[in-house]
Amino acid sequence: MDLPVPDRQQQKGFMDFPHISTTHRNLMVELVSTMETRLATELLPSSLPADVQYYQNESGSAQGTLHIQTGIETSMVDFILGSWLHCGMPTGSSLDITTLTAYLNSKTDAPRFLIEFLQSSPTSMIIILDLPPRKDPVLHLNYLNTFYVDTQLDKQRQLLLNKVPEAQPYFPTSLYIRCALSPVSVSILINCDSQERMDEIIRDNVGPVAKELLEVWLNQCARGGTIELGELDKADLEKRDHLIKKMTVEIDLSSSLPRLFGPDVAGKVIGSIQQVFKT
Amino acid sequence: MDLPVPDRQQQKGFMDFPHISTTHRNLMVELVSTMETRLATELLPSSLPADVQYYQNESGSAQGTLHIQTGIETSMVDFILGSWLHCGMPTGSSLDITTLTAYLNSKTDAPRFLIEFLQSSPTSMIIILDLPPRKDPVLHLNYLNTFYVDTQLDKQRQLLLNKVPEAQPYFPTSLYIRCALSPVSVSILINCDSQERMDEIIRDNVGPVAKELLEVWLNQCARGGTIELGELDKADLEKRDHLIKKMTVEIDLSSSLPRLFGPDVAGKVIGSIQQVFKT
Repeated sequence: MDLPVPDRQQQKGFMDFPHISTTHRNLMVELVSTMETRLATELLPSSLPADVQYYQNESGSAQGTLHIQTGIETSMVDFILGSWLHCGMPTGSSLDITTLTAYLNSKTDAPRFLIEFLQSSPTSMIIILDLPPRKDPVLHLNYLNTFYVDTQLDKQRQLLLNKVPEAQPYFPTSLYIRCALSPVSVSILINCDSQERMDEIIRDNVGPVAKELLEVWLNQCARGGTIELGELDKADLEKRDHLIKKMTVEIDLSSSLPRLFGPDVAGKVIGSIQQVFKT
Repeated sequence: MDLPVPDRQQQKGFMDFPHISTTHRNLMVELVSTMETRLATELLPSSLPADVQYYQNESGSAQGTLHIQTGIETSMVDFILGSWLHCGMPTGSSLDITTLTAYLNSKTDAPRFLIEFLQSSPTSMIIILDLPPRKDPVLHLNYLNTFYVDTQLDKQRQLLLNKVPEAQPYFPTSLYIRCALSPVSVSILINCDSQERMDEIIRDNVGPVAKELLEVWLNQCARGGTIELGELDKADLEKRDHLIKKMTVEIDLSSSLPRLFGPDVAGKVIGSIQQVFKT
């Protein structure tokens, strides 16, 4: 069967966020811009092939973008990774996943940055905002205190839950993901009654928490000063980082991407991610 | 000022649970009895002094019991620890905390057992049911799979939350405690409209989950077979166990017990716990 060649004219870039609301798009653009501006001198330009920067399935019903910038030699940033996925469903509804995440290298043991929005309808959204730890906080009290107690991030989480009656705690299906999140992670499911209300929540409640989280991460993690790790600690850190990346690919990508985009497209995209993940 | 000498005739034992409802008491007695019966051949009799087995403040408004049995030399059980605390408030209400917990030694790395009920009124209760991990699940995938995925304990947690509309996820104030819990921990706050409804929830919903958790712990943790740990792994395990015990004393006991019972009584009780905790 001959399928029409997808119209590449229609392709969108990562920063276009064409399938989410204007309010949501404005927030994502602000977060990505803030991160890139503040880290500008430390990031290399994206070197992803065009067909990984934007990709789609044959019918065009599923579309995705990938944006990766690795840190320069002297930076503590390993890489930043942004993406959006849009999947039109046969029912007419669609699934939109928007992600901004940043990984640090072993010049520091400070937490990663993670923001993820999973929207299954205009009035239903799962939101995860976190600085996932890179050490076991049970064993490392100073780490827990420095990045999670002293930063008072839990107050932000509580405020969000208290101010948004439509928000309820969300438990990720994967137990591994649950374990990988920090004790102050915002992990919520919002079910509200209109697109307008969802926009209001994103603008007035989620936005400020996401921006505060990014500020803490930029000031105290990405630019918080390098540390001298002992060889054993460094090996532990690298082992944990590596495992988390490997599991992220397995849980988030390896099963879903081939199903949505076919094995060829999925293979290219996952390959590009594995290259920076070094998994 | 001369205070009346407390009437020691009124003192109650751990298994009496005199301040909680009959339904709640029946559940606690069943759980403790099951644990003690199944581990009978492995546990030494309690050797706590009488004034630690039962203690109270000068006015008798605050009462507590402590029950500890350590495992015999060949057992994998380090000790089991049960307690209840009752604190009458000047307002006429009271706080009741009922706990059953069990620690394993380094013949195994299997999880601990933890059940805790914090009742601040007949219609308001915080419940924590868990097998807290003794290794970082992020680094130890087999551990996560064996004790948390394959046991399907998360289904129990979901069932409980789905079946009890009055239950909502509860986030412990201490970030350390949050980190120490497993990804399948039941940590809920129940606010219902009557004592009868609370009893119904305990009997029909909480009880079955608590008993299933105990079964899993008895079969797959306490009696799941010893393992040969390498020296480094054993040192890591012991370090983590030790830190968790130390923090448990600090978070749960060191600030509250002296306030409720005065420094002398609190000192004796905490001392007895530290003796088995070896902290």
